[in-house]
Amino acid sequence: MAERIVVALGGNALGKTPEQQLELVKSTAKPIVDLVEKGYEVIIGHGNGPQVGMINLAMEFSANKGGGTPFMPFPECGAMTQGYIGYHLQQAIQEELKRRGIDKECATVVTQVVVSEDDPGFQHPTKPVGSFYTKEEAEKIAAEKGFIFVEDAGRGYRRVVPSPIPQRIVERKVVEQLVAAGDIVITVGGGGIPVVETPEGLKGVAAVIDKDRASALLARDVKADRLIILTAVDRVSINFNKPDQVDLASMTLADCERYIGEKQFAPGSMLPKVESCMQFVRDSAEGCTALITSLSRAAEALEGKTGTVITR
Amino acid sequence: MAERIVVALGGNALGKTPEQQLELVKSTAKPIVDLVEKGYEVIIGHGNGPQVGMINLAMEFSANKGGGTPFMPFPECGAMTQGYIGYHLQQAIQEELKRRGIDKECATVVTQVVVSEDDPGFQHPTKPVGSFYTKEEAEKIAAEKGFIFVEDAGRGYRRVVPSPIPQRIVERKVVEQLVAAGDIVITVGGGGIPVVETPEGLKGVAAVIDKDRASALLARDVKADRLIILTAVDRVSINFNKPDQVDLASMTLADCERYIGEKQFAPGSMLPKVESCMQFVRDSAEGCTALITSLSRAAEALEGKTGTVITR
Repeated sequence: MAERIVVALGGNALGKTPEQQLELVKSTAKPIVDLVEKGYEVIIGHGNGPQVGMINLAMEFSANKGGGTPFMPFPECGAMTQGYIGYHLQQAIQEELKRRGIDKECATVVTQVVVSEDDPGFQHPTKPVGSFYTKEEAEKIAAEKGFIFVEDAGRGYRRVVPSPIPQRIVERKVVEQLVAAGDIVITVGGGGIPVVETPEGLKGVAAVIDKDRASALLARDVKADRLIILTAVDRVSINFNKPDQVDLASMTLADCERYIGEKQFAPGSMLPKVESCMQFVRDSAEGCTALITSLSRAAEALEGKTGTVITR
Repeated sequence: MAERIVVALGGNALGKTPEQQLELVKSTAKPIVDLVEKGYEVIIGHGNGPQVGMINLAMEFSANKGGGTPFMPFPECGAMTQGYIGYHLQQAIQEELKRRGIDKECATVVTQVVVSEDDPGFQHPTKPVGSFYTKEEAEKIAAEKGFIFVEDAGRGYRRVVPSPIPQRIVERKVVEQLVAAGDIVITVGGGGIPVVETPEGLKGVAAVIDKDRASALLARDVKADRLIILTAVDRVSINFNKPDQVDLASMTLADCERYIGEKQFAPGSMLPKVESCMQFVRDSAEGCTALITSLSRAAEALEGKTGTVITR
């Protein structure tokens, strides 16, 4: 049976404008289709940081400054990025498949991810989104809409939203159906559209779900054999950027714990990637491993030639 | 075997703001799930006129007036609407399914639709999109970006894009896989993201594909038994709004031709709906019929109690 892989792709790797994104997805498609060509079942999770920032900013600017368009809630902006990024990504992958004569479909599934209303993240929102405001503007909006603002390094006040832990992928079965049919599936864009369970059904919430955590949850739930988290470097390092830097070929869960204790991994950068890998390895069947590496060397990393593999 | 139905839903039926849309999808979900409950396989195509207008306007306003966000091409705005509308629609349908104890998935597939570069529509763009500009502004943008502007009823100059005929649904197989798996599928949002075939692969074009025509093409290609085009009235009429108005229970293709010759159907309104129905009936197997009716009475219309059925 084919090995099933979830690949988590960074939103930053997709550029800041539609033209950049359209170019960058082409170079993203090649290593992804390399995996497909080698016989792996591939599911793609991706970030949306710059993209949801852009859409949220534009919608906010237009609503506030006389553009005549309505205020757009944050989860809806996230849903828009899934269409926007998914469209470019699937188009590039479809073309790369066709170029290589591989008869497979590639599709984007609009995906909601459930978070808990009791998540401690909701008490301490930390992710800045949208425009900078003056203190007065921020206080006015906070009173009107209940948003939380923080002062951002002297540049003004900015809205912050929580980054809760993903609990459940609403469209998981759909993703599994498509993978079973042989497709390459793009899902949990931006970590998924964050929703909470209410008596009236699911309801979007203003939050940013970490795309690596969402991909790890997805990988566990679709019973993937591997989770690959793509980043800017080929391998995870300890003593990063110091004379005694060591690039790691592998880490056990115990190694990860120890390095985290030593604060080897930067919060908001390598740390959530390592933690997401640990979560997947811990929660999955024996033999399931996670891999942190760069996009361009993903196929080599699967052959053990580079990358850092996280095992039990 | 279950009858397979493609339902084409108007973008106007979804309101103008995210709050309106979130409410309206709830009342849309009920009659859709009625069809599911009666045992039909349901595929939903939907419009995006007001939504793509809003997103395009906001992105344009922010890019032009100092919002600091990039110019967003029209097909990318369309892709965003598929995420935005699909998210609300699938959430509402999922909730309605759950409420009735129906164990089925509902998912949105980001969908591209191929149009021909030689489509005569490209020579004569007619669909106005985006902001109003002065003559000087319009001429400047036209020179920079190659856009075509027309003077709009004294209100200024507005960009126009073509409305080409849909040729091929790129993600058709994916839609079929999900329907075969028992899912309710949301697709061809806004008539689909318009793309043309080029030697380098598919490429987005600024255009608006009629959602009824795209739904008719989809219905033919997924071998649907029925196409239902939803509109504001229960039945198609001749001598509309005149003392001798007749509401039609059925029309053959020959009837349709005759009424079109008599200019019974308003262009841009009932005419494209009737033409889309004719196309589906003409191109599909014997016994396949199309239905024009209102959303709230769709289930009754399928039982022959209302609606206008179009037959060979």
